[in-house]
Amino acid sequence: MNILPVPASGPLDYYRNKASFDWKKLKLFIDTEDIIIYKNEIYEELQKHPDYKIDLLSFKSFDEIRRIVARQAIIYKSIDLLSLENTIQNLRRPACTTRIMMQLSPSSSIKYSVGIRLFVSAILNMGTEKHLSYISDAEEGKIFGCYCLTEIGHGSNTKGMRTTATYSEGRECFILDSPDFEAAKCWAGGLGQGATHAVVYAQLILKNVNYGLHAFVVPVRDPKTFLPYSGLIVGDMGEKIGLNGIDNGFVMFNNYEIPRHNLLNRLGDVTKDGQYVTPIKDPNKRHGAALGSLSAGRVNITCICETLGTKALTIAIRYAAVRKQFGPDEEIPILEYQSHQYRLLPYLAAAYVLRIFNDYLTEVFYQFSIDTITGNNTETRLPELGMEIHAISSSCKPIAGWIMKDAIQECREACGGHGYLKVSGIGDIRNDHDANLTYEGENHVLIQQTSNWLLKIWPLVMEKKEISTPLESANFISDSSDILSKKFTATTIDELCVPENLLSIYKWLVCYLLKISYEKVSGELKSGKSIFWAKNDSQHFLLQRMLITISNATDHAIKNVLTKLYLLYGLWSLEKHIPVLYQGEYARGPTVTNLIHSSILKLCAELKDDAVSLVDVIAEPDFILNSVLGASDGMVYKRLESAFCLSPYNMKRPQWWEEIKNLVNVKNKL
Amino acid sequence: MNILPVPASGPLDYYRNKASFDWKKLKLFIDTEDIIIYKNEIYEELQKHPDYKIDLLSFKSFDEIRRIVARQAIIYKSIDLLSLENTIQNLRRPACTTRIMMQLSPSSSIKYSVGIRLFVSAILNMGTEKHLSYISDAEEGKIFGCYCLTEIGHGSNTKGMRTTATYSEGRECFILDSPDFEAAKCWAGGLGQGATHAVVYAQLILKNVNYGLHAFVVPVRDPKTFLPYSGLIVGDMGEKIGLNGIDNGFVMFNNYEIPRHNLLNRLGDVTKDGQYVTPIKDPNKRHGAALGSLSAGRVNITCICETLGTKALTIAIRYAAVRKQFGPDEEIPILEYQSHQYRLLPYLAAAYVLRIFNDYLTEVFYQFSIDTITGNNTETRLPELGMEIHAISSSCKPIAGWIMKDAIQECREACGGHGYLKVSGIGDIRNDHDANLTYEGENHVLIQQTSNWLLKIWPLVMEKKEISTPLESANFISDSSDILSKKFTATTIDELCVPENLLSIYKWLVCYLLKISYEKVSGELKSGKSIFWAKNDSQHFLLQRMLITISNATDHAIKNVLTKLYLLYGLWSLEKHIPVLYQGEYARGPTVTNLIHSSILKLCAELKDDAVSLVDVIAEPDFILNSVLGASDGMVYKRLESAFCLSPYNMKRPQWWEEIKNLVNVKNKL
Repeated sequence: MNILPVPASGPLDYYRNKASFDWKKLKLFIDTEDIIIYKNEIYEELQKHPDYKIDLLSFKSFDEIRRIVARQAIIYKSIDLLSLENTIQNLRRPACTTRIMMQLSPSSSIKYSVGIRLFVSAILNMGTEKHLSYISDAEEGKIFGCYCLTEIGHGSNTKGMRTTATYSEGRECFILDSPDFEAAKCWAGGLGQGATHAVVYAQLILKNVNYGLHAFVVPVRDPKTFLPYSGLIVGDMGEKIGLNGIDNGFVMFNNYEIPRHNLLNRLGDVTKDGQYVTPIKDPNKRHGAALGSLSAGRVNITCICETLGTKALTIAIRYAAVRKQFGPDEEIPILEYQSHQYRLLPYLAAAYVLRIFNDYLTEVFYQFSIDTITGNNTETRLPELGMEIHAISSSCKPIAGWIMKDAIQECREACGGHGYLKVSGIGDIRNDHDANLTYEGENHVLIQQTSNWLLKIWPLVMEKKEISTPLESANFISDSSDILSKKFTATTIDELCVPENLLSIYKWLVCYLLKISYEKVSGELKSGKSIFWAKNDSQHFLLQRMLITISNATDHAIKNVLTKLYLLYGLWSLEKHIPVLYQGEYARGPTVTNLIHSSILKLCAELKDDAVSLVDVIAEPDFILNSVLGASDGMVYKRLESAFCLSPYNMKRPQWWEEIKNLVNVKNKL
Repeated sequence: MNILPVPASGPLDYYRNKASFDWKKLKLFIDTEDIIIYKNEIYEELQKHPDYKIDLLSFKSFDEIRRIVARQAIIYKSIDLLSLENTIQNLRRPACTTRIMMQLSPSSSIKYSVGIRLFVSAILNMGTEKHLSYISDAEEGKIFGCYCLTEIGHGSNTKGMRTTATYSEGRECFILDSPDFEAAKCWAGGLGQGATHAVVYAQLILKNVNYGLHAFVVPVRDPKTFLPYSGLIVGDMGEKIGLNGIDNGFVMFNNYEIPRHNLLNRLGDVTKDGQYVTPIKDPNKRHGAALGSLSAGRVNITCICETLGTKALTIAIRYAAVRKQFGPDEEIPILEYQSHQYRLLPYLAAAYVLRIFNDYLTEVFYQFSIDTITGNNTETRLPELGMEIHAISSSCKPIAGWIMKDAIQECREACGGHGYLKVSGIGDIRNDHDANLTYEGENHVLIQQTSNWLLKIWPLVMEKKEISTPLESANFISDSSDILSKKFTATTIDELCVPENLLSIYKWLVCYLLKISYEKVSGELKSGKSIFWAKNDSQHFLLQRMLITISNATDHAIKNVLTKLYLLYGLWSLEKHIPVLYQGEYARGPTVTNLIHSSILKLCAELKDDAVSLVDVIAEPDFILNSVLGASDGMVYKRLESAFCLSPYNMKRPQWWEEIKNLVNVKNKL
């Protein structure tokens, strides 16, 4: 069986024939055969369901969108793409599944993964045996869950939450209360219309003492009638910029009682008579552990950002290979213009770097997660690994989010006027992606976490201690005194474009910024700059991982094209930091700027003929991509024409035409 | 009468009381009393109409949006905000009107201004006496116009248009024909459902000779029935990312006949027997002049970008002054955080710089336009002035578009999760603004025009000729040899923050980039860099104009705060060009980067307490702003609460709840 079907022939063949590498070999290298076969099974399964298809042509009402998404979430559930079983079979499956579901329909994907998978994993992580029935009920689709942390007045500052859960000894229950509207839980995905149960974070109060945030399973709607219980006000937050298929909701508790055993008590419990008991003594650690089940969010979002960016790039690069304008004699594809290459190809390189990175990070994370739940792995460094994953995902989520935000916008603009059409698909991608920038921790607040982690490492380096973190993301900082003594030495493009040299520049950048930040922690930490520098550490780690992957490639052409992508992404990101190279006296003289810029343009020119095939490797099939401008056959104008002709508004006269006609003569000059 | 009502009291008073200047004085200085009174009249007039209000709470169907917008366009028409009469009375009125209409409802504004004002001005500019009846019919609302230039396969490359108008001597008519779908006219605002007439650009063919693009008035729908005429296919382009209220349409002609006198014949005519006659001999000039009536578009769009950005900033800055998070002891407004100031305040500065600039540019443009139509002004430099306006608007439109794109996005993110709600208003602003980036000339293609204009100036400078353009935007280039010999000398923040010094740095930047670009025109022009450098010329002009305005301020506090805005915008834009300062050896050594960044942070800190009052000066009233997060009373949570409660979907159980419930148990594991 041929597991990799050849794209339909058409105008894109021109570039496909010019590619420097065999796209099937690269796809096998990046995805592995196992995953490609798994994907094909999913594609086949999805297409069996009549509801899988997203119709962009006809305008949907809010209620219709919700209904479609609910049905799609059920498809996802029925083939249970993210089940633990599936994950254990191959740790690369979750990333692969996220890519498919998110490109097909982000709202449905969130509805399924939050409503069932996140709910189940929260209970697995924080609950005990007595909560197992919630898991089986959720798995059997008898109940739907959601996750309530954020309050109207508090988002990223979780410690400031004001919902309370006060224990009543007499009634052996917790009384949940929201003091006012600002303390209402909000943004919970699935809570607006569909959830029957919520995992709610509240300040635990025992005998007037606050024991900090704890999580409770709270029934909010009767699973038989979907009507809310009395004692709470629950509702939908209404229309949003994007993701309108997902019913984000709010809930306010008015002295709402829940049984004592609804406390998710793995990390801390309350006895019948209201005593607090816990296996973890340090309250800070308890707080950290309580938030632990959220780290999956950031890892997944990093992958979501990559895949939404990839979708936009698939559309814009294929369109750029078909769309012709200007040209010396006859018109040429806009992909031939250096300015167009400079706009798009660095983002294509970013998509590759992130894809390779996400395959790595999700694998590491799910292994960590399984080890934590099962307790099978007795390696003592598990908490350390958890911290490192926390630090990495706290900056990778913002970085992936911001890069892909820019990528999607650039794709939108690069498609010109036709990119503004709904059927191009890019508008929806942007509006859906937008949420990634502010949920699961506001980006600026998140990245501070990574800064803090690095700032704790620096004093150890000063004491000449060897840094050795489980994922080796920061080990190089041990050599900082050597690294900081280096200078920018490249004088030619060839010298600059050596993979290891580029990595050295990033090492200098991280060490330098870490050093000066540490020296003036108080002032600097609050500034925009702390974000600026913590980002570089992750850039270094992204590149480091990419280089490891490249070193495993045996096919010369593949090694070659991946190296160019690595260099393009690295240099293009570095271009934004040139001022720091001068500030730290790493670079001197006038040539550095031009050298970096010329290298980027040269790499763009070299990758231009490979761009379409590079897209073929990471693109989802047309039925998932669902774009008039980006289909794999390149038949842009044929599809535009049929989109116009099939559109339900197309050639009809509006019903209210007479109304307008008669209103026209109202004159009322100012 | 008090022409400036005080904003309602609330949480924003804290900052209003701390402002360093009197907001009313600044508003009078920037807007002038005349314009403030005119605005108040418009506000009053608008609120008399029951349809002026935009309800963000309830989801609108496509058809409803269209109908609302059509009715609003009629309000705009009935008070005829952009009539020539109005403009002649005070040349600052068009910019002021654009701001109000665009913040209230962009689609309605476009529907009115394209359907009536642009149509009328196209006929005024390109037609002759025999076309006057179209003007009176449009003014009386008997017909609606639209403007057809772009084709499916050709946007920015206007010379490549393929629609033909072939003259038939026998029938004394032109036969319009679209060879295929790629030659269909598209994107014409108002053509989709409402237009009865179109100004159509087509290649004029006489006796098998192509005379180039000419404009024709073409009847497309019967004004009595709104049904299309036979011989053409006309329809709507369907849903878009934004601006869905405006009916962008497409039209294909199938040997469609129009009378000979429908050629807009001011610049070129066809005699009864098919001879071409023209007062302008050079065909290139004819082509240029034929496109002349489009330059109004770019000038207006520059103003639209400014005002949409201002709307987003109004929301985000007021919200930042109310929203509290973290803080050392108790929580503090997020506006107090340096990182938040750095995210928003440079864009506020940009809004001021652009506002002052747009008042200037629109005034200059409308004077030019009146002089051209009336022929009253016999100053010989009118064509030169036209060229300069063309060059300036070709780069100011992209610059304003890109800055405000970033500003709107930053505002969206700075509002955190709640910014993602439809009722925040920011999503609609972004989606509507998005069109500005690709219509009326793709930004990258447009900015090339400015580059070309500058590159023609450079050889004159080399010949030691004095450059003296009518608006003096490029005069300083005459001194390039002196300018290029200068170095970056500031060593302290105070030295750097001298208004004239900052302007000198930009002068160096423009001359340096112009020089090196000229030296390698062929290679460089096609790269991303040509955009990069041509942008700097406009930045210089923006700052130059701002400085002239500041010099007219008599109140010390006003002069002071405007100077800070000038410096903040200038330095923040300069920060992106630090690598060029090193590349050109204008700057050396390690301190420049830090000096510029520290100055920006210092200015942000100084402007932080003024930000709310600075917003009050440029904000539109609440009924126009229409944002839950940005109202002038700062009552964010009260408004959020009522938005949730009044939302039509809020607490209802979806009708299809049973369907979902029953579907749940379908199991079909992969």
